[in-house]
Amino acid sequence: MKKINGNVTTPKGFQASGVMAGIRKKNRKDIALVYSEADCVAGATFTTNRVKAAPVNWDISILRNGLSKHAVVLNSGIANACMGEQGVKDNFAFAEAVAKELNLKPEQVFTASTGVIGQPMPMQVILPGIQEAAKALSDTNEGGKNASEAIMTTDTVSKTVACELTIGETKVMIGGMSKGSGMIHPNMATMLSVVTTDINIDEALLQEAVSAAVKDTFNMISVDRDTSTNDTFIVLANGLAGNEKIVTKDKAYEEFAAALFAVCEDLAKKMAHDGEGATKLLTCEIYNAKSKEDARVLAKSVISSNLVKAAFFGSDANWGRVLCALGYSGVDFDPTKVDITIAQEKDKLDIVKNGMAIDYSEEVATMMLSKDNVSFVVDMHDGAFDATAWGCDLTYDYVKINGDYRS
Amino acid sequence: MKKINGNVTTPKGFQASGVMAGIRKKNRKDIALVYSEADCVAGATFTTNRVKAAPVNWDISILRNGLSKHAVVLNSGIANACMGEQGVKDNFAFAEAVAKELNLKPEQVFTASTGVIGQPMPMQVILPGIQEAAKALSDTNEGGKNASEAIMTTDTVSKTVACELTIGETKVMIGGMSKGSGMIHPNMATMLSVVTTDINIDEALLQEAVSAAVKDTFNMISVDRDTSTNDTFIVLANGLAGNEKIVTKDKAYEEFAAALFAVCEDLAKKMAHDGEGATKLLTCEIYNAKSKEDARVLAKSVISSNLVKAAFFGSDANWGRVLCALGYSGVDFDPTKVDITIAQEKDKLDIVKNGMAIDYSEEVATMMLSKDNVSFVVDMHDGAFDATAWGCDLTYDYVKINGDYRS
Repeated sequence: MKKINGNVTTPKGFQASGVMAGIRKKNRKDIALVYSEADCVAGATFTTNRVKAAPVNWDISILRNGLSKHAVVLNSGIANACMGEQGVKDNFAFAEAVAKELNLKPEQVFTASTGVIGQPMPMQVILPGIQEAAKALSDTNEGGKNASEAIMTTDTVSKTVACELTIGETKVMIGGMSKGSGMIHPNMATMLSVVTTDINIDEALLQEAVSAAVKDTFNMISVDRDTSTNDTFIVLANGLAGNEKIVTKDKAYEEFAAALFAVCEDLAKKMAHDGEGATKLLTCEIYNAKSKEDARVLAKSVISSNLVKAAFFGSDANWGRVLCALGYSGVDFDPTKVDITIAQEKDKLDIVKNGMAIDYSEEVATMMLSKDNVSFVVDMHDGAFDATAWGCDLTYDYVKINGDYRS
Repeated sequence: MKKINGNVTTPKGFQASGVMAGIRKKNRKDIALVYSEADCVAGATFTTNRVKAAPVNWDISILRNGLSKHAVVLNSGIANACMGEQGVKDNFAFAEAVAKELNLKPEQVFTASTGVIGQPMPMQVILPGIQEAAKALSDTNEGGKNASEAIMTTDTVSKTVACELTIGETKVMIGGMSKGSGMIHPNMATMLSVVTTDINIDEALLQEAVSAAVKDTFNMISVDRDTSTNDTFIVLANGLAGNEKIVTKDKAYEEFAAALFAVCEDLAKKMAHDGEGATKLLTCEIYNAKSKEDARVLAKSVISSNLVKAAFFGSDANWGRVLCALGYSGVDFDPTKVDITIAQEKDKLDIVKNGMAIDYSEEVATMMLSKDNVSFVVDMHDGAFDATAWGCDLTYDYVKINGDYRS
């Protein structure tokens, strides 16, 4: 498996577009369309928030309806959440308009929305926008790039990824895009993400690979602990690569699952790094915890702590806050066994041994923490399970962005 | 029961002091002492963090040792957490020095520390400081005020409270002080709090009243979801009021418990309002939830949300974020039954009915949210249980304070 330049149009048979429909005030792309002419199987995961936006409920309802899937339509600017019956109707019209353009049934079209909660979808600009998006569909890199730009909200960069792997003799591609900036927290981020692949795979196995990948990637990032009403992750697989269909958990499945994991991890890290107001990517690697779940909870507790995040912003090696965040995670452990190391590329600086500070250079620690991408590596000496979580620093700009998001 | 001006020296027989020992860089008071010559029974609660500072472990070990209690010594500047054996020794010396000055056993002296984690207690200044604090003990209002000032860290104001109630024919006093600013989250805040009372009460009943009060006061505030290693709440009761000893859960007990609750609520709100960088007090009142615990979890989820807090800073009536925070709290409920009202003193503005926005004036909402003290009042229409939680806005200053706390 190797990473390549690309996006959702990289796998065979996928087209995409992103257009300015006029949902957003500024001149920004706001409708994205991803399309496969060939029949697709789909895997997906959605927000666990009790309050779910209309498109999320729609997607859940069509995911296992027995029809082949062909498209995902996404908009930014309006979340279509907390809109009652109107929201359900508008969302259906959203899917229906795409279906009409592409000769599909509405139930073959996934929808996703992100933006302000509690305002109606401006259908008078969305419906013409869909016509335009359908016309603009393209299998070029540009098509996928436009789509990835159309789903940005407070994101500062569009996020795409692609990789290629070989299943038997057959070259298989996976491409993806995501948005997500604030309101990002495990289970899941305010993220919309679409991944396309030309692999030929049984739908139940695809879902299994999707669920497994999400657990240790999208669900291990946090910007602000808020979990949105709209989180949606959809994978479409159209089989055009022509590999022998994957129907059991054989070597081919494992290779695909690993590649899908790498794609999700790449997008997850990009989202954490581009957290609202973030200047730096913060990683916490937990080793030797009592269970996998303990390791996950500990890692997430560290990267979610406002105090750790603010200290990271100030490049302050305030390891007491790291130990403190481990301590209130709810996981039972012996603090006097914990070691903490700051890691930054090849450099490693031990700062805590057996739960106490050792003699380290504050100057070196500060220098390492001032870099773009730093890990707190924590050895619990308590078991055999590891996990990694990703977050970002807490900055003035986070407050600024979220103090006047709607205006 | 009525609130009066006062603090820990208001109840009969209590003395206090606060002195500059030189633990902190600046010329600030940093050792506080609270003392009762008469024997006291004690009730207390402590941090649930797995990482506990040395003074917390000490207090837990002496709480039920059968000896009468007489004093609480507190310092700011150094947390004495994550210091291993050295921390245990230093803390014992801390208690021992107070015991020597006041003719007590060390096991009759509670200790509490707040400040930087992982640095040693500077005993060379602390021990002389204790001598000074013992000399300065005073039963005046000034003595209690000095003590409340000596435990401040990033607090911008000292926090004290007092109330008087009548048990039978007897006048009883309760006085308190607390510190806590950042790292404040349920179970419990980074708070140190000492409450004194001259009531005559059985120790087990005192503990019961303390535990009950904490649950819906100190444990219902959050500044940043971080739970510290040092949280300590100690109540000393010396019986000098002369009321008939409370030995059952009779009317007198209920009256005392209600007064203690009011004292804790007052201190809790003061701490939330003085959260690091906070400019405003945010209250969330939940009504008609399915259970008491559901109501608590929902209320805390709203006041803990960084997105709600940032919107509150910007006086933005972003009710979608309130509904969203309810939704990811983990509580099961029907979003289409939820009503939300903004309340500010006598004014009430309905903004959400049945989970959807109603036609309200953004201008009025913004004006109300720009005030110092605002509530989101949420009716779940789902049961008969209520709860209230307190927090604050998320501001540039929170980031500033915590980006360079140690420097």
